[in-house]
Amino acid sequence: MNKDTPFYITDDFLLHGESARYLYHEHAEKLPIIDFHCHLPPREIAEDTRWNNLADLWLGGDHYKWRCMRSNGIDERLITGDASPREKFDAFAATMPRLMRNPMFDWSHLELARFFGIREVLSPDTADHIWEQTRAALASGGFSARSCITRSNVEVVCTTDDPTDTLEWHAAIRESGFPVKVLPAWRPDKALAIDRPSAWNKWLDGLEAVTNAPCCDFDDMMNALAERHEFFAANGCRLSDYGIETVPDVEIPAPSAINAIFRKVRTGGRATPEEVNAFRLGTLVELGHLDADSDWTWQIHYGPMRNVSTRLFEAIGPDAGADVIHDLPVAAGLARLLDALDRDDNLPRTIIYNLNPRDNYLVAVMMGAFQRGPDAGKIQLGSGWWFNDQKHGMRAQIDALSELGLLANFVGMLTDSRSFLSYPRHEYFRRVLCDIIGSEIDAGDMTHDLDWAGSIVEDICHHNAARFFRFGE
Amino acid sequence: MNKDTPFYITDDFLLHGESARYLYHEHAEKLPIIDFHCHLPPREIAEDTRWNNLADLWLGGDHYKWRCMRSNGIDERLITGDASPREKFDAFAATMPRLMRNPMFDWSHLELARFFGIREVLSPDTADHIWEQTRAALASGGFSARSCITRSNVEVVCTTDDPTDTLEWHAAIRESGFPVKVLPAWRPDKALAIDRPSAWNKWLDGLEAVTNAPCCDFDDMMNALAERHEFFAANGCRLSDYGIETVPDVEIPAPSAINAIFRKVRTGGRATPEEVNAFRLGTLVELGHLDADSDWTWQIHYGPMRNVSTRLFEAIGPDAGADVIHDLPVAAGLARLLDALDRDDNLPRTIIYNLNPRDNYLVAVMMGAFQRGPDAGKIQLGSGWWFNDQKHGMRAQIDALSELGLLANFVGMLTDSRSFLSYPRHEYFRRVLCDIIGSEIDAGDMTHDLDWAGSIVEDICHHNAARFFRFGE
Amino acid sequence: MNKDTPFYITDDFLLHGESARYLYHEHAEKLPIIDFHCHLPPREIAEDTRWNNLADLWLGGDHYKWRCMRSNGIDERLITGDASPREKFDAFAATMPRLMRNPMFDWSHLELARFFGIREVLSPDTADHIWEQTRAALASGGFSARSCITRSNVEVVCTTDDPTDTLEWHAAIRESGFPVKVLPAWRPDKALAIDRPSAWNKWLDGLEAVTNAPCCDFDDMMNALAERHEFFAANGCRLSDYGIETVPDVEIPAPSAINAIFRKVRTGGRATPEEVNAFRLGTLVELGHLDADSDWTWQIHYGPMRNVSTRLFEAIGPDAGADVIHDLPVAAGLARLLDALDRDDNLPRTIIYNLNPRDNYLVAVMMGAFQRGPDAGKIQLGSGWWFNDQKHGMRAQIDALSELGLLANFVGMLTDSRSFLSYPRHEYFRRVLCDIIGSEIDAGDMTHDLDWAGSIVEDICHHNAARFFRFGE
Repeated sequence: MNKDTPFYITDDFLLHGESARYLYHEHAEKLPIIDFHCHLPPREIAEDTRWNNLADLWLGGDHYKWRCMRSNGIDERLITGDASPREKFDAFAATMPRLMRNPMFDWSHLELARFFGIREVLSPDTADHIWEQTRAALASGGFSARSCITRSNVEVVCTTDDPTDTLEWHAAIRESGFPVKVLPAWRPDKALAIDRPSAWNKWLDGLEAVTNAPCCDFDDMMNALAERHEFFAANGCRLSDYGIETVPDVEIPAPSAINAIFRKVRTGGRATPEEVNAFRLGTLVELGHLDADSDWTWQIHYGPMRNVSTRLFEAIGPDAGADVIHDLPVAAGLARLLDALDRDDNLPRTIIYNLNPRDNYLVAVMMGAFQRGPDAGKIQLGSGWWFNDQKHGMRAQIDALSELGLLANFVGMLTDSRSFLSYPRHEYFRRVLCDIIGSEIDAGDMTHDLDWAGSIVEDICHHNAARFFRFGE
Repeated sequence: MNKDTPFYITDDFLLHGESARYLYHEHAEKLPIIDFHCHLPPREIAEDTRWNNLADLWLGGDHYKWRCMRSNGIDERLITGDASPREKFDAFAATMPRLMRNPMFDWSHLELARFFGIREVLSPDTADHIWEQTRAALASGGFSARSCITRSNVEVVCTTDDPTDTLEWHAAIRESGFPVKVLPAWRPDKALAIDRPSAWNKWLDGLEAVTNAPCCDFDDMMNALAERHEFFAANGCRLSDYGIETVPDVEIPAPSAINAIFRKVRTGGRATPEEVNAFRLGTLVELGHLDADSDWTWQIHYGPMRNVSTRLFEAIGPDAGADVIHDLPVAAGLARLLDALDRDDNLPRTIIYNLNPRDNYLVAVMMGAFQRGPDAGKIQLGSGWWFNDQKHGMRAQIDALSELGLLANFVGMLTDSRSFLSYPRHEYFRRVLCDIIGSEIDAGDMTHDLDWAGSIVEDICHHNAARFFRFGE
Repeated sequence: MNKDTPFYITDDFLLHGESARYLYHEHAEKLPIIDFHCHLPPREIAEDTRWNNLADLWLGGDHYKWRCMRSNGIDERLITGDASPREKFDAFAATMPRLMRNPMFDWSHLELARFFGIREVLSPDTADHIWEQTRAALASGGFSARSCITRSNVEVVCTTDDPTDTLEWHAAIRESGFPVKVLPAWRPDKALAIDRPSAWNKWLDGLEAVTNAPCCDFDDMMNALAERHEFFAANGCRLSDYGIETVPDVEIPAPSAINAIFRKVRTGGRATPEEVNAFRLGTLVELGHLDADSDWTWQIHYGPMRNVSTRLFEAIGPDAGADVIHDLPVAAGLARLLDALDRDDNLPRTIIYNLNPRDNYLVAVMMGAFQRGPDAGKIQLGSGWWFNDQKHGMRAQIDALSELGLLANFVGMLTDSRSFLSYPRHEYFRRVLCDIIGSEIDAGDMTHDLDWAGSIVEDICHHNAARFFRFGE
């Protein structure tokens, strides 16, 4: 690539009109970030992890980058294998010029610019220079997990934690005086994983250990989870999260029926596919009650099919870059789940994230049937998730939400990331948002009232989330 | 919001280029409206209903607005409850500034501008003024159901009527000398609702009463429906309409099999889900024959899941804003239904409306397999319906139809509305249409022949519908 | 239409900015075409077919045009019936002005311009002139099947051939010294069609005849196919192709189970739907092994429902314009198929083409899970196929591939056509591609490096395909 080309990420990157630029620079740019859903390891925040080089930081666990490199024909040794960090970095640098129009191209250069002040495009020609510059920065005292967070103007971070977690690292962070709120979030997926009996039973054993009580039937499990739920709440938790393939279209089972399935698998049996679905839906309803009772927001992430490559799973394990988009039906099951809780006013504030973008309209419309005061936007269409976390995906989510719901009440962006460098994705989102709104104003399609538009931009980028999640309570 | 901002709906609203403006103002703007599918109550047209205030007019039955208000956290008392009209109006006025990019924002301001000459944005700041101005207009002699229709330059209105309806109000309208053609349309959904035995049987009792003949088996029902079909035709009916979740993928049952299901439920039994599907598909085929024999156009609206909120259904009933988009498969069933009629040349002129926009391409392509002269555009992709009746939904429908079928033969827009104020949606559609075509001409993507483009715009906005439906016959 | 309007297809057709024009004219325009998937009849290339008139050439077998004409209400006699060529041409000319925004409008005028030098819009007004001009050109010595190919700057053509084909016409072409490489491609769909026992058995009889060996069980068939596969390879074949409704979500059957189904149908029985699915998936896996062993690329075209109109099938047969888009689930089956081969490193280079555009994201993401060096872009998302082969469809495919995979490694466009005139579709694709990339550069969304962008454009338009398919080997 041509090294003399001026760096393309300017102040007005992605902002194509006067109103877009005004909205971004005057309203969005300086707002703090509320990252209400991510996968940052609390231990690394507590220990304030440092990195030796950009390869460790960028390529250590980022399956987005791994997928890009594999798509470019790079040998697995240079991706997740035993190659040296520099070899891996060079393989990634060689891939970069092939990433035209892939979000990784923009994300990477935003990260280089925002964290390292590097304003050039990564390629084999610039790899040496960028490697050395970033190594110097990383070696200096000022670069660490915590500094990535504070430099990004982050106000709240919600991690993702198993109910059996001791939350000791969260306590350590709190006690350390770190000024950013780092809160746990409740992710009881393992309670739902009755289709993998040995892992499920092992997890229940852990639940027994942490609660110091036997877990022999479904009530035991729910009692133990209720205890852990209180413990999480006491540690500042305000959100739960459920990752599922789909909401199965089955009748919600009676407690005795759930318990029969529970006992069968707890005592060494296997659940049929029908039983797995019934158990999952029934347990989701009970978990929803817990969340509603605690005035939490629950998040439902549905749509992936996990670990489809046996080869990668055996070599690397889960999160290897082999999760894909499923195409199971969802409407009937999702309606039944929400209704089961809503009919008795036990539906928590809800965020639904669909992985298959063909469901954007379906979910955006479903929300409207269950909206209920006093919260504005009680049911939320989650921001473009995972494979939709890019320009077209963001626009499709924002358009669906706008046309079928209330964009103004949107709680906005999150990182959903394992990387401390991913905060510029909020900047990316804000630029896209301001460009969408500003372009319509400049085209005359919307009333030319920039204070009004600016206040909505601020709501979406920060204030709605600040109000919605009750972090202070 | 800033009250000093010039009103955003100008003469050239949504028209972004010279050709778009020319096409709209010279070709589309002044054409009369053929509203071939709506839910206006014929009684209100016959009685020329008047309204006391904008809350009654706007919020009395409009579940679109209810959904917006619920999404903004408004209490149900202020939406469908016992609050005063002014309280409800104020709650809606407070919601308006949150409706950025929602079609309700544009629809409402078009209605204020076109019916009341109000050219300001509704918000708490302007609520008083707009309430008083509209109340004065409504209190004056000139504002009524009929005046809304005539002022909107409407030529034909097709209502939506049950086969057992006496059509007395249509007769009254005819006899009154009202210059607009107000015709019934045939909607026999209750004949298909065999899954709700008590409502279905009650409806059959009504059919017995209106035809003065027993209805003990399937042939009885079809004979009674044929008699009513003739009666509707004599009253000017030229369209039927079928609202279904999907076209089920089952074999078309033999008459004896349909009759066995009919008799089972008519004598107090319940149909299995398989029998419900078989009955529905078999009955649809028979109803299609009736429509073909009468040279009517049949409309198939598929895709909703109805009344998913038990809470809203129990409090308000159907049409409460709790219908959503379903995701059932449709291709195999739809192909079988169309083929069953087409193979013997018994397929009526057809309009198919899909609710899930992910089916736009599927339906647009399916049409092509059953097109047949002499009618141009015998099978039509219906305009963006319900949740798709907004800018992105209209564009997606127009694009699918253009690329996969013949846009020029499109019968165009309808209101599908219960409100007498909704005719500006035709204006909205026409502006979007002219902008799409004009933009491509200005970009050089299409031959710069504005007479040709203008004649196609006129066809879509009026002439195609005028020819297609045989209203004069 | 206005005959005095300047012809709309200029040098810069579809190129809306400076960078788009530069990329097209300096990088894309002059590159040769590698048409790696088409349905040109090798016999017509060998015999260098000539045509009498534009009706024979355009309307003889083009179901795209037939569908357009039927959608315009044209009688079947004037489409596929016994009308004279000139009558048919006039019916098509009368349809043309109604094809606004349909790709047929652009395709037809590109063909008139590129092959006949005609720069006017076809309509009843110009029909005489165009008929005569094209007849003169066709009557001249220089217009034939081969001249269409060579004038289009085609480097390689891959036809579509049954495994039992003798490939005699390919041999004849080779021996004739025709400078364009015309290679067979392997399309064993009939081996999979066990749901139509009589056609399937008849095809197996043909396989017996051509291999001179009995075909009584599954191993016999696979042995015969392996022999034919080698024969195809020796004749230059480097691609296979599989046309399926979907990849069924069933367990991959053991060889003995496949054989039991095979023998049942080979001896006069009928396979159950479950057996059909099992047989198909199992056979696909075996065929994938053959392709991998030969270092071929396999193409999977999934998504159509065929011959949905009984009327057209009985009158015309298959390929009558009555194939539509299906909506069967695909994710689970596709993942299983790819994994079954990939886990032991037996997955060939793969191109997946989805017919339902709602699957674009699903397939683009699925690819990433199975990418593997050393080939860049080993798994490809096929270019917008069939009903997606138009501006919006191309953009949707390019966007999905860009955001979720590596556009730069795309092997690009193909014609998938039965017509010798369809090569301008490559021009159409290249213009769209250059416009997408150029527009983002001009908007500042992408680094302004035109040499880099130009090299990627060249890769997509020619070089990737040249490398990927190993034609030289």
